[in-house]
Amino acid sequence: MSAGRPVPQDGGVTFPTGYRASGVAAGIKRSHRPDLALLVSDTPATAAGLFTTNRVRAAPVVLSEELLRGNPTGARGVVVVSGVANALTGPEGYQDSQEVIRLAENAVGLPPRSLLHAATGMIGPRIPVPLVQGHLGQAVADLSADRAGASRAAAAILTTDTATKEAAVSVRLADGTKVRVGGMAKGSGMIAPSLGPPHATTLAFVTTDAVVSPQGLRGVLWPEADRTFNMLSVDGDTSTNDTILALANGRAGGAPADEDPAFRAAVGHVLESLARAIARDGEGATKLLTVRVSGAREEAEARSAAKAVARSVLVKTALFGADPNVGRIACALGYSGASFDPSRLDVGLSARGRRWPLIAGGTPVPGLDNGVGAKMHTLLQQLDEVVLEVNLGPGPASATAWGCDLSYGYVHINAHYRT
Amino acid sequence: MSAGRPVPQDGGVTFPTGYRASGVAAGIKRSHRPDLALLVSDTPATAAGLFTTNRVRAAPVVLSEELLRGNPTGARGVVVVSGVANALTGPEGYQDSQEVIRLAENAVGLPPRSLLHAATGMIGPRIPVPLVQGHLGQAVADLSADRAGASRAAAAILTTDTATKEAAVSVRLADGTKVRVGGMAKGSGMIAPSLGPPHATTLAFVTTDAVVSPQGLRGVLWPEADRTFNMLSVDGDTSTNDTILALANGRAGGAPADEDPAFRAAVGHVLESLARAIARDGEGATKLLTVRVSGAREEAEARSAAKAVARSVLVKTALFGADPNVGRIACALGYSGASFDPSRLDVGLSARGRRWPLIAGGTPVPGLDNGVGAKMHTLLQQLDEVVLEVNLGPGPASATAWGCDLSYGYVHINAHYRT
Repeated sequence: MSAGRPVPQDGGVTFPTGYRASGVAAGIKRSHRPDLALLVSDTPATAAGLFTTNRVRAAPVVLSEELLRGNPTGARGVVVVSGVANALTGPEGYQDSQEVIRLAENAVGLPPRSLLHAATGMIGPRIPVPLVQGHLGQAVADLSADRAGASRAAAAILTTDTATKEAAVSVRLADGTKVRVGGMAKGSGMIAPSLGPPHATTLAFVTTDAVVSPQGLRGVLWPEADRTFNMLSVDGDTSTNDTILALANGRAGGAPADEDPAFRAAVGHVLESLARAIARDGEGATKLLTVRVSGAREEAEARSAAKAVARSVLVKTALFGADPNVGRIACALGYSGASFDPSRLDVGLSARGRRWPLIAGGTPVPGLDNGVGAKMHTLLQQLDEVVLEVNLGPGPASATAWGCDLSYGYVHINAHYRT
Repeated sequence: MSAGRPVPQDGGVTFPTGYRASGVAAGIKRSHRPDLALLVSDTPATAAGLFTTNRVRAAPVVLSEELLRGNPTGARGVVVVSGVANALTGPEGYQDSQEVIRLAENAVGLPPRSLLHAATGMIGPRIPVPLVQGHLGQAVADLSADRAGASRAAAAILTTDTATKEAAVSVRLADGTKVRVGGMAKGSGMIAPSLGPPHATTLAFVTTDAVVSPQGLRGVLWPEADRTFNMLSVDGDTSTNDTILALANGRAGGAPADEDPAFRAAVGHVLESLARAIARDGEGATKLLTVRVSGAREEAEARSAAKAVARSVLVKTALFGADPNVGRIACALGYSGASFDPSRLDVGLSARGRRWPLIAGGTPVPGLDNGVGAKMHTLLQQLDEVVLEVNLGPGPASATAWGCDLSYGYVHINAHYRT
């Protein structure tokens, strides 16, 4: 393993040393799919978290934020409920989540205030606490440090997702220590970037055996989440439950990784893999959309421009129809707030190792109305990932955003979510 | 007619004295539907305009803005092309639009710089000027001051719209003068509110026979467009071509209407009617959504909150499914930027003369998960206009936004717009 470079591995949250995970079906979801996940560190871990900026905050968000403030070096894991969000549930919902945490800590044999908590699902209904209570024993018995344990936890946090989302890397730090970073995430709808720390989109959990301080962990988590999860959009709706939690149990030993660029690269790799997996599995999605903007005056403008294209409902429906509708791309860039000279705009499609120009010098390439357009249509039909390269001008700043197309399937899922 | 109160009338842009209109099929649209509209005032008119804030601006937007600056009291009308937006067409597109204006002025027999111009349709392709030239004679011959002339113009400015959008009122001013205001609009997709004057969404044309100065006309047009068109969202995409133009030819005589609240009410009535018609005819829409927010701390927050709900893709798909998914409404309010206490949130549905509570004191009303929810589902299925009443707290500010549901039809229209 070359020093400093993250090496992707097959694994999830149990890939780093000293973590166990499980996922069981407690009956919270009507579908009887797994809906209760446990993630436990064998020893106390440093923890950091990012939470939704939505003014309506689910009880687990409020509680986890409180716990992180009170005990940032004594975290022992997370209990996650899927099927209900426990948002808009008033003081009773807050008490329900406190009870879920207390029951889980008792079941695992942990001291109070050592488990973090997250939830995802319907907004409004309360957590059926007796169902959770009745299945925690099985969840604890199933806790496993192997690959399958991580996958079972990754499955139990899903809602409308069609696939689990896991990532893992190993990396060698500057002092020679080999550390591991693993992660899992869920997210398929109610997914949009927001602004300003503390913030995160959807649920994601990152584990590592690196030695790192609370400040160091947060100092890595925030910029890397901002570069990845905050550049992700499925539907433009910022959830009440968004949570990213990171645990670092220090089992790898060695010098603190706080300032080590290799550690940051490893966490960034895991977060980017998870963010891309979420975009690819967006509700009803048939294509992953990656929008790379360069040549912006400043980074904030590059980010706005990339996100506007990835979020545009018109770009997303055109993508579903494999329509090289460059006007909609230019339109989204135009209202993004980025300042650029439209007569210098270049947009291209990267696919199969080459770049196909779509807009050059501010106007669509010749033939896009007929022959070239038909060729692009056929190409777009065949791609399951579409990479748009946008150049706004001579500026130094760039950014990447991720999204997906908008299909009949999206409407079906969301028009009939309850019925 | 009671003084000061606008009285709705059957009519469009020719309802005020001294206007003629026509609409013909020039072959710009592949469908051979009408696509070239003329609106002419018999005498020079005061003009005011609001234009898109999109950085990518169509040639007609740039030209009309220039013309308004140069000749705000000598406007004689508008020439509108539908089928192509003439955006992203470079210097050639600018020259095409100049030529369309020149040809139309010649055909009507008007001096240079007397016609305004707007276009809507595909972004990218150029205006087929010879087709316009070949059909201007017919458009001039068809100019008519009657009801049918207004309707033919209103039909010729449509793109994916399924219905013409016209409105008219008469009103008595403070000095006793009876004036008339008429209007037509188009808009079905690429429709979203934006911020800051000068701005407008979609195409709308307002005519009046009132006497009013350029400053007075603009002083009425901007706040009323901001209250109506800027609170409208179909898909969240702010177009490159948005234009609202108002013409006042003074044929009704009397004192200047500049500061007359009755005149402002009349213009406001026409704009609100047109905005609602656009929302109702949103691409693929089956329901009009009206969101009324009250109790906000300030107007900007009331507007943000109302627009966030009307614009939420998740609220829109739930509406299509007749799903009383109150969590999505609360979620949208939560990320809208409005500051409010979630535990005081009230949301209700107004229908059939009564108000059905959905969220009371920050939590969903009991039974929304089952019995009450089923009743609401049946009610929502039957409504073609859904009015949500949101109370954010004890604040003094309120605002209303308009939108529509998001259906399979929307995806179909926009995935296959070109193919």
